[in-house]
Amino acid sequence: MSVDLAQLVTSIAQRARAASLILATASTAQKNAALLKLAEVIPAAEPALMAANAKDLAAAKENRLTGAQIDRLTLNKKRLELLAESVRQVAALPDPVGEVLEETTRPNGLRIRKLRVPIGVIGIIYEARPNVTIDCAILCLKSGNASILRGGKEIYHTNTAFAELLARALTHAGLPADAVQLIPTTDRAALNTLLKLDTLVHCIIPRGGESLIRFVAENSTIPVIKHYQGVCFVYLDAAADAAIAEAVTLNAKTSRVSVCNAAEQLLVHQAVAKTLLPQVARALRAKNVELRCDAAAAAILEGEKIPHTSATEADYKAEFLDYIMAVRVVDSVDTAIATINRDGSAHSDAIITKDETVARRFFAGVDSATVFWNASTRFNDGFEFGFGAEIGISTDRLHARGPMGLRELCSYKYVIEGNGQVRV
Amino acid sequence: MSVDLAQLVTSIAQRARAASLILATASTAQKNAALLKLAEVIPAAEPALMAANAKDLAAAKENRLTGAQIDRLTLNKKRLELLAESVRQVAALPDPVGEVLEETTRPNGLRIRKLRVPIGVIGIIYEARPNVTIDCAILCLKSGNASILRGGKEIYHTNTAFAELLARALTHAGLPADAVQLIPTTDRAALNTLLKLDTLVHCIIPRGGESLIRFVAENSTIPVIKHYQGVCFVYLDAAADAAIAEAVTLNAKTSRVSVCNAAEQLLVHQAVAKTLLPQVARALRAKNVELRCDAAAAAILEGEKIPHTSATEADYKAEFLDYIMAVRVVDSVDTAIATINRDGSAHSDAIITKDETVARRFFAGVDSATVFWNASTRFNDGFEFGFGAEIGISTDRLHARGPMGLRELCSYKYVIEGNGQVRV
Repeated sequence: MSVDLAQLVTSIAQRARAASLILATASTAQKNAALLKLAEVIPAAEPALMAANAKDLAAAKENRLTGAQIDRLTLNKKRLELLAESVRQVAALPDPVGEVLEETTRPNGLRIRKLRVPIGVIGIIYEARPNVTIDCAILCLKSGNASILRGGKEIYHTNTAFAELLARALTHAGLPADAVQLIPTTDRAALNTLLKLDTLVHCIIPRGGESLIRFVAENSTIPVIKHYQGVCFVYLDAAADAAIAEAVTLNAKTSRVSVCNAAEQLLVHQAVAKTLLPQVARALRAKNVELRCDAAAAAILEGEKIPHTSATEADYKAEFLDYIMAVRVVDSVDTAIATINRDGSAHSDAIITKDETVARRFFAGVDSATVFWNASTRFNDGFEFGFGAEIGISTDRLHARGPMGLRELCSYKYVIEGNGQVRV
Repeated sequence: MSVDLAQLVTSIAQRARAASLILATASTAQKNAALLKLAEVIPAAEPALMAANAKDLAAAKENRLTGAQIDRLTLNKKRLELLAESVRQVAALPDPVGEVLEETTRPNGLRIRKLRVPIGVIGIIYEARPNVTIDCAILCLKSGNASILRGGKEIYHTNTAFAELLARALTHAGLPADAVQLIPTTDRAALNTLLKLDTLVHCIIPRGGESLIRFVAENSTIPVIKHYQGVCFVYLDAAADAAIAEAVTLNAKTSRVSVCNAAEQLLVHQAVAKTLLPQVARALRAKNVELRCDAAAAAILEGEKIPHTSATEADYKAEFLDYIMAVRVVDSVDTAIATINRDGSAHSDAIITKDETVARRFFAGVDSATVFWNASTRFNDGFEFGFGAEIGISTDRLHARGPMGLRELCSYKYVIEGNGQVRV
């Protein structure tokens, strides 16, 4: 790599670190002023944003991206308005910084308070969705963190135009423009440099496909918060309510198949498989869900003449992100729990049952970020939790697990008041 | 590396993972039964432990370790009794698992609870202190985590003897012996294998010198909680109380020079430097502290005929862990804050002042894990915080910052109760 590129990235990180110290003590009013200015300039800058976006779209067509991929890259008036609205919503959220998390006075008179503070400098590594640039920048800003954004090359010109607006909004509010910076190159070497700057950058959040996340996790010496896949289960217990079983399974599988909290795996207790599975399977088939079954489930569906296929071993651990569901019959809630812990991704798993004892056993035994009783896995989401916004759904167990909102973008510090205490 | 060694380590991690699922739902009584049995068997096993320790001590002498190093390795009756007492103390602490951290009911009727749960499997990588084996094992056990221990080769036989006692205590309580496992080799290749098992092990905590921690952080794909050095500051403000300034500086520097929360750096406001610095310096000199001064501090001490030396640039960022302190004169609290944020390690920093406004500015501006007002940096410690125990003092900003007790060895999960809710 050229020395210049390493110097450039290091300089960005140094300026981000300096800006983070100012941002950490900025008032809520000042941070909100920057956000509201941004919400104002995004629609106003429509011509410049569209011109930049047009360059990315032209390159995308030249590189023969698919229609769906090009659609994701595309800005239009409506999308800009939605983006501005999301910025206003984040401005309206409570400021997480400064909250007293705990307070105690020790026998020696020391008063210990644990305060929520920003993490510091957060690096966001993402792919080709332009809204991620704004989403991540505003969540980091509101939580008092400086951010370094490194988006995909497919959206480089659009991101550069957004970065200019962010700098303008920060400056307007009297905050350092360096509080949000874009890596001005998509050279992979720049990313490699960034991932080693562990004295300047405190956290890396990769947003995107598994190979991107894995690359970041394997190459970063900075702590990474990962957002891996969701291999989510719905377990229909012996004491399941049939109507809830059908409604929740259908919603968990088909309300949006491409997201991490969509269900991929169905387990049915053998005591009710003969009656309940056909009902649920018919509902899934009506939405064109392919059912990949184990022998027991296949025999039941065969008898009912419900179309299905045979599952492979790989299907039982698959994140299909499609109208496909693997189906197995299990002999007990304990087998269901063991199956989920073995084959799932500890993301979002649900039990349908009327039996509270069984539900409590499932809650305790399933080692996942979020466990549901009689509700859809699709509710594992920062907005649905009432966080007001989310930067993703963490699959890690340290720091943040499940939906990450503004509070999860914070660390804490202890401040201790004494009157001359010394340790004996 | 031999395939056998990689298989061995992988098998240990697989068994730890299986044990962690059982331990996560074990009752407090069961975990405490294992701990109390351990406290009973440690003194009872004195002959076996001393025989194992003798092997390590013989090797240590052969390898010409220093007297201090050999002392750290050495077990004796008193040390075993202290160790058993620390196990009883952890048994007496409240169980952090299962605590409801938050509870909310959403407008759609979903009841969301955030519960404290164990992290899962924790790997502890450490060096040559035999008590670390027991300390880490019992803290992980009480917090419901399975642990994989990898200690230094200097203490291998002693650790193996401790591991047998741990297995016996776990089995006695009906818990899986695999809940605490020792890597039965100090081959570096085994460590390298362990650090990549990110689907089985959820957290790595290295305890030891900076080079060990750096090696682990750079080679692990598992999240690491680091416990780096403490370059801790005491700042004597223009409004400092002279008696408190002297007492706190002396305590922070000299009560135990070899620990991470000992002060290494002294800053004095120029308005009081001429009067206060000689008083504090004389107290430090009476304890044989070498004072490495900037030009302004040197001029003042020179005038008072107080022995001192000239500081180098490296001294201003040094963790001496010795009877040495770097001394600088600063022109304001803001310069003190900027100096600490630039040259310190964000560990434990103190201001001495009677001026509350200045103290609040220092609290907000100093970006460290723990910030003190009129108290010694030496109080940054899990026992002093009332945690009852600590596994270390985290210098990271994610998950745990500052002292790590039982709660910081936990993650959380969401359990959500509904009555058939689906997402629209």
